[in-house]
Amino acid sequence: MVRIQVPQRCPRITKSMQYKYLFFNDYSEGAHPRILETLNRTNSVQELGYGEDSFCTEAARLIKDKIGNQDVGVYFVSGGTQANIIALASMLKAYESVISATSAHINMHEAGAIEATGHKINTVKTTDGKLTPENIQEIVSEHTDEHMVKPRVVFISQSTEVGTIYKKSELEQISRVCKEYGLYLYLDGARLGSALTSSDADMELSDIAKLVDMFYIGGTKNGTLLGEAIVIVNQTFKENFRYHIKQRGALLSKGRLLGIQFVELFRDNLFFELALHENVLAEKLSKGLAACGYNFLVNSTTNQIFPILPNSAIEKLKIEYGFYVWATIDATHSAIRLATSWATKEEAVDAFLDDLKEIS
Amino acid sequence: MVRIQVPQRCPRITKSMQYKYLFFNDYSEGAHPRILETLNRTNSVQELGYGEDSFCTEAARLIKDKIGNQDVGVYFVSGGTQANIIALASMLKAYESVISATSAHINMHEAGAIEATGHKINTVKTTDGKLTPENIQEIVSEHTDEHMVKPRVVFISQSTEVGTIYKKSELEQISRVCKEYGLYLYLDGARLGSALTSSDADMELSDIAKLVDMFYIGGTKNGTLLGEAIVIVNQTFKENFRYHIKQRGALLSKGRLLGIQFVELFRDNLFFELALHENVLAEKLSKGLAACGYNFLVNSTTNQIFPILPNSAIEKLKIEYGFYVWATIDATHSAIRLATSWATKEEAVDAFLDDLKEIS
Amino acid sequence: MVRIQVPQRCPRITKSMQYKYLFFNDYSEGAHPRILETLNRTNSVQELGYGEDSFCTEAARLIKDKIGNQDVGVYFVSGGTQANIIALASMLKAYESVISATSAHINMHEAGAIEATGHKINTVKTTDGKLTPENIQEIVSEHTDEHMVKPRVVFISQSTEVGTIYKKSELEQISRVCKEYGLYLYLDGARLGSALTSSDADMELSDIAKLVDMFYIGGTKNGTLLGEAIVIVNQTFKENFRYHIKQRGALLSKGRLLGIQFVELFRDNLFFELALHENVLAEKLSKGLAACGYNFLVNSTTNQIFPILPNSAIEKLKIEYGFYVWATIDATHSAIRLATSWATKEEAVDAFLDDLKEIS
Amino acid sequence: MVRIQVPQRCPRITKSMQYKYLFFNDYSEGAHPRILETLNRTNSVQELGYGEDSFCTEAARLIKDKIGNQDVGVYFVSGGTQANIIALASMLKAYESVISATSAHINMHEAGAIEATGHKINTVKTTDGKLTPENIQEIVSEHTDEHMVKPRVVFISQSTEVGTIYKKSELEQISRVCKEYGLYLYLDGARLGSALTSSDADMELSDIAKLVDMFYIGGTKNGTLLGEAIVIVNQTFKENFRYHIKQRGALLSKGRLLGIQFVELFRDNLFFELALHENVLAEKLSKGLAACGYNFLVNSTTNQIFPILPNSAIEKLKIEYGFYVWATIDATHSAIRLATSWATKEEAVDAFLDDLKEIS
Repeated sequence: MVRIQVPQRCPRITKSMQYKYLFFNDYSEGAHPRILETLNRTNSVQELGYGEDSFCTEAARLIKDKIGNQDVGVYFVSGGTQANIIALASMLKAYESVISATSAHINMHEAGAIEATGHKINTVKTTDGKLTPENIQEIVSEHTDEHMVKPRVVFISQSTEVGTIYKKSELEQISRVCKEYGLYLYLDGARLGSALTSSDADMELSDIAKLVDMFYIGGTKNGTLLGEAIVIVNQTFKENFRYHIKQRGALLSKGRLLGIQFVELFRDNLFFELALHENVLAEKLSKGLAACGYNFLVNSTTNQIFPILPNSAIEKLKIEYGFYVWATIDATHSAIRLATSWATKEEAVDAFLDDLKEIS
Repeated sequence: MVRIQVPQRCPRITKSMQYKYLFFNDYSEGAHPRILETLNRTNSVQELGYGEDSFCTEAARLIKDKIGNQDVGVYFVSGGTQANIIALASMLKAYESVISATSAHINMHEAGAIEATGHKINTVKTTDGKLTPENIQEIVSEHTDEHMVKPRVVFISQSTEVGTIYKKSELEQISRVCKEYGLYLYLDGARLGSALTSSDADMELSDIAKLVDMFYIGGTKNGTLLGEAIVIVNQTFKENFRYHIKQRGALLSKGRLLGIQFVELFRDNLFFELALHENVLAEKLSKGLAACGYNFLVNSTTNQIFPILPNSAIEKLKIEYGFYVWATIDATHSAIRLATSWATKEEAVDAFLDDLKEIS
Repeated sequence: MVRIQVPQRCPRITKSMQYKYLFFNDYSEGAHPRILETLNRTNSVQELGYGEDSFCTEAARLIKDKIGNQDVGVYFVSGGTQANIIALASMLKAYESVISATSAHINMHEAGAIEATGHKINTVKTTDGKLTPENIQEIVSEHTDEHMVKPRVVFISQSTEVGTIYKKSELEQISRVCKEYGLYLYLDGARLGSALTSSDADMELSDIAKLVDMFYIGGTKNGTLLGEAIVIVNQTFKENFRYHIKQRGALLSKGRLLGIQFVELFRDNLFFELALHENVLAEKLSKGLAACGYNFLVNSTTNQIFPILPNSAIEKLKIEYGFYVWATIDATHSAIRLATSWATKEEAVDAFLDDLKEIS
Repeated sequence: MVRIQVPQRCPRITKSMQYKYLFFNDYSEGAHPRILETLNRTNSVQELGYGEDSFCTEAARLIKDKIGNQDVGVYFVSGGTQANIIALASMLKAYESVISATSAHINMHEAGAIEATGHKINTVKTTDGKLTPENIQEIVSEHTDEHMVKPRVVFISQSTEVGTIYKKSELEQISRVCKEYGLYLYLDGARLGSALTSSDADMELSDIAKLVDMFYIGGTKNGTLLGEAIVIVNQTFKENFRYHIKQRGALLSKGRLLGIQFVELFRDNLFFELALHENVLAEKLSKGLAACGYNFLVNSTTNQIFPILPNSAIEKLKIEYGFYVWATIDATHSAIRLATSWATKEEAVDAFLDDLKEIS
């Protein structure tokens, strides 16, 4: 069985290293130039603080329009862990827990942030990072009385931490099971752009909003300097939501910084165009790798791919490219993660594939 | 593979039910008569509150003597979940976590009490409820940086939640691994009496105290009305420990109630005698069941045993005996849990075995 | 202005000290003999654990009868700090706070237990330990937006930490203000017995239950070994309340211990008789002190009184009586606290007054 | 007595309003142009995430140089509430508390963020927002045992929430008292720039670092889009500090955004120049108001001033200027708060003073 390694942190990059490109992640560069331009242009306008500025108002309006639902609440915070802390703390009572995949960001890579707000995570081991209705039913059925926590929120990521996506029918089934058992459904959309523009996608933003109680639209990994837009669909949770934001230290004084960026992403289709760009380049990488005869740890149609390579090839590629070694497959093979971003250039992808062919 | 079921809560007992005996657990009766006598005798003596009475002082002294270490700290609290909350909260920094078996009480049956103090539990699936040095090493090696929690305490139970015990060599190995990795070792001794007097035991109280940083000696499941004695071996944690007790609501005004009971348990060998009584009767049950040809889910030499019976036999036994159905083995068999207590009479065990033979 | 001192902890009592009587507090002795008798008598009966035993059921029924409301929820926990932690945690969302007097037990003497569950206490300085409707209105009016906590529960004690009580009209006014502002009203009844049987009392248990959302009836300071009965009036909070109890470590395995004691207190009028006894003796002390010409820090008609004495007299009394020095009045005078209990004998009161006269 | 009002939130600004200038706060505009230029220039450089980029490294080096101490730890987070949450959570054990003025940001305006991490705040009422050594001693002396929290950190703001500053001798005395009582000293420097460049200032950054255990240098209110630099002086707290940052959701993926801004502030004297600009304009406002015969609620030499004006004048000024009404002085007078920022133009100050003269 494939043993997922916890990826070691990337090596310290020093000036003397001459990387051709870093595929470490989708936040190695700054923001899309249009965002910087608007920040410059609006810089001297005086605005109210704490997200009550006209840009945040406008950005919320644009997102509501894209979703096709004027009743949702839209709130901007600076990062994904923050979004998850706030969203879950707002939905859970003291004794309630959240169900997630073991590989979920909240379980693996948030340094116990959810537990620090007092809540247990009930985890399910998966191979593709996706929960099934059966996983949820099983956990609910195991929690029978007050000696145990009471599961109340289902946490899913779209795309998942391993690049996979939920199809519409899958999300519908999960949504149905949640309703049946009185659970809330929350979707971490750190990479929602990439999921919605995947070649395999069959949902729009409006579909997501119909099936979950709360979700967030990731900006940081989709072209902004920082910023995530929390969307509250279930009206119950809109009341006093800003108190949660403030209490967790996420109410930026210059909230305009978040508003401006989301206005740029959603005043036309920039959000989707940037995501599509990521996917297209990731797909080019995938096809190139497959053409060289390599397999993948999971099938991903989003901007993170996990090819399995001989360790010898990995060692050579590491000299000029940045990426994580993700999993040990056998004595001589490992899976690596390659991530593309809004800023990745086709030249970088071509160079990687050329160098790969050479060493294969 | 055997699928451990979450035991359903026992049915409401009504007056009209005529149980021969309840083997549900080891806290179905009150306290050992000697404890009640001393409570009566000392009732009108005036004492200081909050555990600063002369009985608590005396009980602590007796326990230190039994351990053979005058430097340990001894503190009394009313229950096991409370003991675990306080002990772990005193040892962990905000970002630190505790390693335990999935079946550990803190993970399964404390309603998220540990997470409610802000800490994650890193769990390991086991078949016998026991952690191995390798389990610990693996979890430590998976936690590499500040994106994840930092494991700091290893939680073990002696006896475990499924009746098994750690042998001395096993505990020594775990202790060594903990020291090597800078982890603290904490032992939940809710059923420590039963573990130390098991036919399989090769340790004394003093051995436990040499190998762990903190542990507690269970009273509730060993003959008291309530009460657990937390023993702090690692001097670091003695400082201000009473603040933790108070903050979690565990500093009883009439702390004498706890002191008096532990004086009775430890002024001679009552603690061990009561535990041995439990074990002897559990062993008689085990042998009787084995003689009838039944197997067990796990091999237990303590006061909880888990025989596998035909569902038809279980249905019949349920009429006159109380016990939990613990695990589904196959379509026609289940494992049940039988627990004996300080108060269980041999007649009850004999009756159960007689009735079992009859229906076998 | 009188400066309330934080009372220093009482001196360690050693065997060589020959105290005539300790007036330190109302929990220096054990339980009322009738309680011990019933514990003895029922000791070998097998019962379900965790408060699902027949004694807890019966005790809850008796309390509901006394209150005259079968719809309230009744839950038993072992101590007052625990009761407060659980009650408040069950009523508050993450960003909500509780309003109390600065002198309130939750603010002064619970080692930050409420804050440890994540909630701020908004305090009001008072001279008599009692909140007024104006205090509440002022705090509410100061909390205007999400940059501040949102006050949601009003915490009062009856009797208060300085022995005073709310009259019915006062409690009605507070209750009305709470309803007007959407606040919940919670009453800490650690010394509710003494309050209800005070010579100044104009309320019964049923009146309390009509005016608050939740309260607890103190057993520890009214004749039990331990135990408080939380009464939930507001139906909202009954749902899943036992999860809160379990999560905070307050669900005793042998819950029968609590049930039995409250059955004894409420199967007739023992609860009120014991409280009245305390009050009568405290009143005798008060009258004796007043007859000697001494004044009081506050006017108390319950079992805690706060006479102001010359420091020279205090020094002499300290030799044979135990009590706290509570407040410095001026260079030569201090207020002390004298507390009577269910077990205090009239002889002890007489001796104290005799000795006082002698040194006056 | 002057009654400090909780300032009402500013009115919603609509397009139709024609404000001459908003003196609401010091974060109404964006960032200093030089910061935006550098963000633009470095946008396409690939960097590691989570503050491990070369800009954060460089910014930390520059700050260490300015402080003149290479051993301090420097960490960047996005906001002041976040900085306070992380700093205090890293310094406090579960039962420990923080001492602050009632008016402290952590007590008044962080929605219970500190309590949400489990810690009580022990507050002292002050008229000028400043703690004295006596305040600290008094609180420490009131907290005597484990029934109460244990004060461990002293929180001060420089400049304070009402614009005042600690002189060097005052800070030295507080530092000395903290050392004497085993307390840590933490300084909230949201407006540290303004404090250090005040006409009344007698300290440099290096002085602060010698006297406190931890502090933060505010960027948001001193010319950045967002960002505060936490400086750890006490080596104890450097270990694993990044875990705290991550756990509270404050480890930005694109940490470069913070690094770049602090490089710009500290690669020369921009940080101090911007602060001085604020102070100079605030002083001009103060002098102009004084020249018109107005008094002040507190004497401030930083960028927040609190003049007392007739309500009639306030009503008129409100039409064209934005500011908070801060305190009711008497039936016809109130104090208002005027804040200047790095971006305030002298013309705005002149216009305000001209308009004021006209209506005086």
